[in-house]
Amino acid sequence: MPNQFDPPSGTRDFLAAEFTRRERAFGVLRSVFASYGFEPLQTPAFERVDVLLGKYGDEADKLVFKILRRGEHEASGEADLALRYDMTVPLARVAAAYGSQLPTPYKRYAMGSVWRADRPGRGRFREFTQCDIDTLGSTSPLADAEVLCAHHDAVAALGLADFRILINSRRVLSGLLEVFAVSRELGPGVLTALDKLEKMSAGEVISELTSRGLDEQTGGELVAAMTAEDATERIRTALKPSGSGMAGLEELDRLLALVGSQIPPERIRFTPRMVRGLSYYTGPIWELLLPDEAGARPGLLDVVVTVLSDDLAAPSFAFAAQARAAGLRASVYLGSSGKLSKQLRWAAEQGARWCLIYGNAEREAGTVTVRDLVSAEQEAVPAAEVADYLASRTADARG
Amino acid sequence: MPNQFDPPSGTRDFLAAEFTRRERAFGVLRSVFASYGFEPLQTPAFERVDVLLGKYGDEADKLVFKILRRGEHEASGEADLALRYDMTVPLARVAAAYGSQLPTPYKRYAMGSVWRADRPGRGRFREFTQCDIDTLGSTSPLADAEVLCAHHDAVAALGLADFRILINSRRVLSGLLEVFAVSRELGPGVLTALDKLEKMSAGEVISELTSRGLDEQTGGELVAAMTAEDATERIRTALKPSGSGMAGLEELDRLLALVGSQIPPERIRFTPRMVRGLSYYTGPIWELLLPDEAGARPGLLDVVVTVLSDDLAAPSFAFAAQARAAGLRASVYLGSSGKLSKQLRWAAEQGARWCLIYGNAEREAGTVTVRDLVSAEQEAVPAAEVADYLASRTADARG
Repeated sequence: MPNQFDPPSGTRDFLAAEFTRRERAFGVLRSVFASYGFEPLQTPAFERVDVLLGKYGDEADKLVFKILRRGEHEASGEADLALRYDMTVPLARVAAAYGSQLPTPYKRYAMGSVWRADRPGRGRFREFTQCDIDTLGSTSPLADAEVLCAHHDAVAALGLADFRILINSRRVLSGLLEVFAVSRELGPGVLTALDKLEKMSAGEVISELTSRGLDEQTGGELVAAMTAEDATERIRTALKPSGSGMAGLEELDRLLALVGSQIPPERIRFTPRMVRGLSYYTGPIWELLLPDEAGARPGLLDVVVTVLSDDLAAPSFAFAAQARAAGLRASVYLGSSGKLSKQLRWAAEQGARWCLIYGNAEREAGTVTVRDLVSAEQEAVPAAEVADYLASRTADARG
Repeated sequence: MPNQFDPPSGTRDFLAAEFTRRERAFGVLRSVFASYGFEPLQTPAFERVDVLLGKYGDEADKLVFKILRRGEHEASGEADLALRYDMTVPLARVAAAYGSQLPTPYKRYAMGSVWRADRPGRGRFREFTQCDIDTLGSTSPLADAEVLCAHHDAVAALGLADFRILINSRRVLSGLLEVFAVSRELGPGVLTALDKLEKMSAGEVISELTSRGLDEQTGGELVAAMTAEDATERIRTALKPSGSGMAGLEELDRLLALVGSQIPPERIRFTPRMVRGLSYYTGPIWELLLPDEAGARPGLLDVVVTVLSDDLAAPSFAFAAQARAAGLRASVYLGSSGKLSKQLRWAAEQGARWCLIYGNAEREAGTVTVRDLVSAEQEAVPAAEVADYLASRTADARG
């Protein structure tokens, strides 16, 4: 129940315990960034209004908090300053202001509050913290590899293990539009719609593609290619006629090879349908999915139990209950497919750390196969000990 | 020369070196505050406009940055939010909001940016950092003593040595107004004028007192009492008829006794003419003078050389030049008094760390007496070695 002494809508007071927890996390990030040679930069909380506006698009411009001119000009209702909306535009201003005084390349990190006049609620805040790393003045593919590794290491250093990095390339996306003969005008809208495959059903996305002007057949083919179990391979094949697409794939493969020694392969996956909103991205793009991410599909469950046939449903259901009794979020697979690969995939999409596989072989042996979806290792555990096993593994992971 | 890529007027970009230097200092303060059991609190950058306005007085209200209402309301020119002006009003809101959830007493520190729509320039900023410690819910004199010691320790932990704490009590000031028969209406204006004795001459302050409605005789007596060399003793005597004044003196003496084991006596001084602006202060008040404080009189010099007679002026002048050659800021005493006590006092007011005393005894011995104005210790140094001596002591102090 909000009262007059609450902080403003969309903002938070951080009392000691929460403050300390956050500062500790920021300290971890800072030290990982510094270990890669990123140097700190702190810019003012506000910029001149003309510096901020016109950079983010019309919708975002509306979300910029504007500050009234001072003193007698206040009554004019005009704004001359605006609160920082992100760390990127201030970085561009700093690069323009200090130019040759900065090292080349300039590798900087910035951590601080940004403010957005968003509608609060649903896990969205008007004041929140951004932690950015950027490299200016380098065209080396190593620059992307370094940022990606630092991103991975930073999240791992926070003690998180069950996260996934989805990676793609804007050039792969251009290539896809090219080989599916999507017109230049429809391109951005088609990508925006495909980006929703994470949250909407294939049918819904096809309808949206059609409503955006794409013919239904092309829309269906695109969605089918993107959601197929072997989507990655299908996209690789489809891109062959596109120079841009092949260049994007090469770029991605080189990047994946570069980071291969530092990022475990289970944690990173070429995900053709991942788009990222901002049009100023040109090369590799990635996002990181955390199981606990508020409001998102991933991270809803810790444990998924397979249902490989109707007669195995009851014991599977019981295993899920045992996992819950051990303090974990758990569910059986509720889809119609009896294929293990499909069920494992659904478990991964839920952000689950473990999949309990219970088939005929396990039933005969009196065991459950516990698959760690992060390391891809699996182990046969006596059926009666599954709950204890999961509880102790969870305690280990939380260290 | 300002250009379009500079940060907004009155704000600063902190690149790596400066950022790191500042963070290190903030870290030192945080650990001193924590060592006293003050816990961190972080409130949002902005508050609802009605929370902030009406708390600081009309003049200060004009310096509060106001934020336009969001979305379609923006065009109305109305503000519903305002940037934090200090840490005190947000603390009061937090106390009201969380009440019994907070420990009693609640000892908190807050460190962060505050924003003031001030006229920039002359070492003033529109965005700057405040580091506050406050204790809520205790009437013990130990609470003041603890805040004062933590303040002292924090500044000392930053590696500063040559600072001074001026201490007074609002009750002493009330008592003074009482014994000098200043009317209740004139009281606040009289205190404001007396506060300027640090920056203006006695004559100027007397004129200001007169222009504020005080009769010239009372004004003259007040200023004389406050600026006398034995001001402290004179004020103590004058206050005897005032219950409030005597209570204030007792309060101060008790506080000084409590902190005596932790704050070297040279660093703290009862200073009856120190007023502090805000009317919500009720008990002990203090301020800390740092030699490097931008724009203020104290801290202009590292070394002051006495001029105890006309025939000693030339060698004294030469000692000042030697100190400058050793990298120190140095000046001879330029006033008309030949009294050592007066010259030492001027040296202290300049924030000087050392006074070089050169009288007839020193001339005969071929030495200079170097007095450390912080420790009040002094040492005879061969005249030819003074510059080296000061240089090495400075290097020691800077560690």
